[in-house]
Amino acid sequence: MAEPWHSCITQELEQLEALMDRSLDSENPELSEMCRYVIGAGGKRLRPSMCLLAYFACGGKDASIPISIGAGFEIIHSATLVHDDINDQGEVRRGRKALHRQYATSKAIIAGDFMFAMGFKLLADAAPHIVNYIVDASAAMGAGEFVQKDFEHRSSVTEGDYLRIIDHKTAKLFEASIKSGAAVAGADVEVLESLGQFGQAIGSAFQIVDDALDVTGDPHQTGKAIGTDLIEGKPTLPVIYAMQDPKLGDEIRAIFETEQPTEDDVVKALGLIQRTDAIQRCLSLADGMAHDAVACLDILPDSVYKSAFVDVADYVIRRTR
Amino acid sequence: MAEPWHSCITQELEQLEALMDRSLDSENPELSEMCRYVIGAGGKRLRPSMCLLAYFACGGKDASIPISIGAGFEIIHSATLVHDDINDQGEVRRGRKALHRQYATSKAIIAGDFMFAMGFKLLADAAPHIVNYIVDASAAMGAGEFVQKDFEHRSSVTEGDYLRIIDHKTAKLFEASIKSGAAVAGADVEVLESLGQFGQAIGSAFQIVDDALDVTGDPHQTGKAIGTDLIEGKPTLPVIYAMQDPKLGDEIRAIFETEQPTEDDVVKALGLIQRTDAIQRCLSLADGMAHDAVACLDILPDSVYKSAFVDVADYVIRRTR
Repeated sequence: MAEPWHSCITQELEQLEALMDRSLDSENPELSEMCRYVIGAGGKRLRPSMCLLAYFACGGKDASIPISIGAGFEIIHSATLVHDDINDQGEVRRGRKALHRQYATSKAIIAGDFMFAMGFKLLADAAPHIVNYIVDASAAMGAGEFVQKDFEHRSSVTEGDYLRIIDHKTAKLFEASIKSGAAVAGADVEVLESLGQFGQAIGSAFQIVDDALDVTGDPHQTGKAIGTDLIEGKPTLPVIYAMQDPKLGDEIRAIFETEQPTEDDVVKALGLIQRTDAIQRCLSLADGMAHDAVACLDILPDSVYKSAFVDVADYVIRRTR
Repeated sequence: MAEPWHSCITQELEQLEALMDRSLDSENPELSEMCRYVIGAGGKRLRPSMCLLAYFACGGKDASIPISIGAGFEIIHSATLVHDDINDQGEVRRGRKALHRQYATSKAIIAGDFMFAMGFKLLADAAPHIVNYIVDASAAMGAGEFVQKDFEHRSSVTEGDYLRIIDHKTAKLFEASIKSGAAVAGADVEVLESLGQFGQAIGSAFQIVDDALDVTGDPHQTGKAIGTDLIEGKPTLPVIYAMQDPKLGDEIRAIFETEQPTEDDVVKALGLIQRTDAIQRCLSLADGMAHDAVACLDILPDSVYKSAFVDVADYVIRRTR
């Protein structure tokens, strides 16, 4: 699906799709089919887009390098989604059955590992010196998931805890994607740092809006059911803010602390959260982050790629899917 | 634990242990602890040993490179064991509870992913041009696991099917380890190919003996229960040969085809297999492979490292653990 920022990198994104498809070819037909099931479900290609836009915004000319890197990032991101869905018992992803539900959990674990390896290969082949970006992001993602698990159903979680978790589990990969694109274009340290900050802020804003959509989203648009974070007891910002509500907070806290909430509990909690100012506060925070992110772009000369980054920032806070 | 071939690389193996420990450090203490639980359980360090021996046998001087590569291979191998144990519902590994039983499955999946990333990092940092060896091996391992799953409880599996499965799921990684060590020492193509063949044959022989030990092994020595492959319906060579027995084959086949065999079924099948010539035939085949492997070493000049390779070959076919 075309997004506003795709227009200046349409051709490169098409090549990226073809490269992902080729890279995930295996001698085992079912393994290839499973990878294509995941990649073919679409997605916004935000991470590779950030990589491509950074490369061109920093004056890069040979698109083949950021295409490979972007494909590597998207494949590794997709591998983490496959394993996340197993861990979270997720049923639906991008409007289809999650991979482990469509096939089998054991095969989905292996397919995820295969995708990790192929993603690393694309990165290492294209630019060995940026492998550290993805490895650092992978390490952070692991740590972030661990901390998140430790806070499941625990109402003591704070806004600060949450921001650290999403920085690790989401923002670091955005940051790595954009910095990789800039680095292979030969950007200097200041530009790398500013774009890294852009990626970090956009990644965090993206996750906050994602967590808000788990409360207010339309499943037909998001491609996944609402309330799943609540069922899992995930410490998300809407819940953290809602638990602070002077009138409704206690009731929401009680449900959040319930290890295995019923469907009625979850429906009730979703209704209660929506009666607080939690979603509004989440969206305000994401708005501010996107605003700060756009300020980081001042270091770049004007170009269609710089404008496209503004489109990304705009999309991230306004998206309904 | 010291193995015969360790004596000429004792110091390097010590440095490798320390490097693995450092590389698996995470900002999340539990994640680090889980990785150390896996790595700290020991193991024969066969893959890194092959890498180190190849490097020195081919005239390499700077041990730091094959130490990093060997550590990368061992960590990636360990990550696959963590995920395999989840897939196979393995309870015990190297004499301890499997990681997902000691901690939790969801955390074990993440820890495995983290180990993959750190293993790749070690390889990419040390020698970017050998990343393809591990990626090709990873791709083969995935494909091998898929084919193996498709043959579970299916008595139509042949010796040829089995040999292809173990080539992919086990031998390719041995081959990659040894070729990586030789490649970074600057070995020429002929030496690379011969050592690759050595690794391939030793890896296959290792797996055949491993599968025989699932029938005849002493759990106190192997560190794992026997009969687990039978419970899972894994298509292993002892079962394939035993099903060919003119008298007992049909009975063994019936149990192998049972989707959820009882404990009695498994004990019975183990007894039946031992009354056939299946184990003897497996060990003969492994013997022949090790013999062919040793012939591949002719291309190397004599050295303590070449002799150590012979010790490895000898160990692989004689091991009881």
